[in-house]
Amino acid sequence: MDLHYPNGKKYVQMETVKKKATFAKNISYSNRGMTLESDLNETNVYYLEQGIAVIHKKPTPVQIVQVDYKSRSTAVIREAYFKQPSTTDYNGVYRGRYIDFEAKETQNATSFPLQNFHAHQIEHMKRIVDQNGICFVILRFAKTEEIFLLESQYLFIFWDRMILGGRKSIKKEEIEEVGHKILLGMQPRIDYINIINSLYQFEETE
Amino acid sequence: MDLHYPNGKKYVQMETVKKKATFAKNISYSNRGMTLESDLNETNVYYLEQGIAVIHKKPTPVQIVQVDYKSRSTAVIREAYFKQPSTTDYNGVYRGRYIDFEAKETQNATSFPLQNFHAHQIEHMKRIVDQNGICFVILRFAKTEEIFLLESQYLFIFWDRMILGGRKSIKKEEIEEVGHKILLGMQPRIDYINIINSLYQFEETE
Repeated sequence: MDLHYPNGKKYVQMETVKKKATFAKNISYSNRGMTLESDLNETNVYYLEQGIAVIHKKPTPVQIVQVDYKSRSTAVIREAYFKQPSTTDYNGVYRGRYIDFEAKETQNATSFPLQNFHAHQIEHMKRIVDQNGICFVILRFAKTEEIFLLESQYLFIFWDRMILGGRKSIKKEEIEEVGHKILLGMQPRIDYINIINSLYQFEETE
Repeated sequence: MDLHYPNGKKYVQMETVKKKATFAKNISYSNRGMTLESDLNETNVYYLEQGIAVIHKKPTPVQIVQVDYKSRSTAVIREAYFKQPSTTDYNGVYRGRYIDFEAKETQNATSFPLQNFHAHQIEHMKRIVDQNGICFVILRFAKTEEIFLLESQYLFIFWDRMILGGRKSIKKEEIEEVGHKILLGMQPRIDYINIINSLYQFEETE
C-alpha cells in the first residue's frame, strides 16, 4: 500500500488506522465522496465532545411528496426527491463566530473542477462573507489523499475567472499557493479549526 | 375577526395583510404550526434580500432507506423515515455572530408545554451557549397570536425545573416576565433581529 504522509509523523500508527478505516469503509460506504464526509463527521464529533466547536452537517434536502401514515406514530415517506442544496453542507459556531463550509473531492490529479459547486452555493458563501462569517471549502484530492482548506474569497476569484470565460477548474498549484494543507490526523481526523485559529483572531472567551 | 395589536400601529394595513395571509395559508397549508414557520421563512427571506442576516431553516432530517434510479438523472426516494432532530431548526449568521434558534407554538392559553422540546435539542442549545453563540426560542401562543423571544438560558431554567420534578410547562406570566414580545409586522413579519440588537453588543462592521 502506497501511503503518502509528507510530514512523516506517526507513520506506523497512521497506517494501522488507515487500514482499519479502509476496511470499515468497504463495508459501510459505496459512494464516492464518503471518505471525506465520514472523516469530517468524525472530526465534528470530536470537536463537539471536546467542547471545541459545534459544527454539524445539514440534513440532505428532500422534497417530500407522499407519506403513508401506517399508525399514529409511524410515518413512511413513499415518494420524495432530492433537492439541489442552496446553501453549504456544514455550519456551526466556534468561539461565538459563525463557521460555514462545503467539502468536495476530486479524482483529478492536477486540478479541482469548479463544477463541484453550484452558483447558488457561491452566492450563499458571498452572503456569509458579507455578514463577516468564516467561510471556506475543504478540497480533497482523492488520488494523493491531500486535503486543503481554501478560504471562500479565493474560491470566488477562481469562480469569477470561469464566469468570465476562463478555465473551469482550479489548478492544484493555485490551491497549494493560496490554500492551506491539512494533514490527516488521528484525533481529530481533519483539523480545520487549527487552520482557522491561524487565520482569524478571536477575542478572549468571556 | 378579533385582532389584537396592543401597540395600535398600522391597524388597518395589518388587518388587510392578515386576511391575505390567512387566505393564502388556507390554500397552502394544513399543518398546525405552519403559520409560525411560514412567517419565519418570510422574515428570513427579507433579512437575506436586505443583507441584514443569513438565517436558514435546516432541511427536515430524513433516514433514506430505498431509492429508485429510474434514469441517470432522476432518483425517486421510495422508502424513508423522519428522524428526530438533534439540533434546532434555524441557524445562521448576523454580523459575524452565530445565531441558533427553535420555533414552536402552542394552542394552550396560559402556559407553554416543555414537551415541545427534546432533551437533545436542549443539550445542543447548551453547547451553543458554551461556544458563545446567540441562542433562543421563538414561542407562539396560537390563540392570542402572541409571539415571544425567550433566550435559551431562561429555557434551561424552566427545563431543569421540570427535570427536578417541577411543572412540565412554562407559565405565560413567566414568559412575559423574562421573554421579549415580538409584535407581528409587515416587513419583516417577525423581527427577532431587532430584539437581538437590544440584547447584544456588536462590533462595528469592518
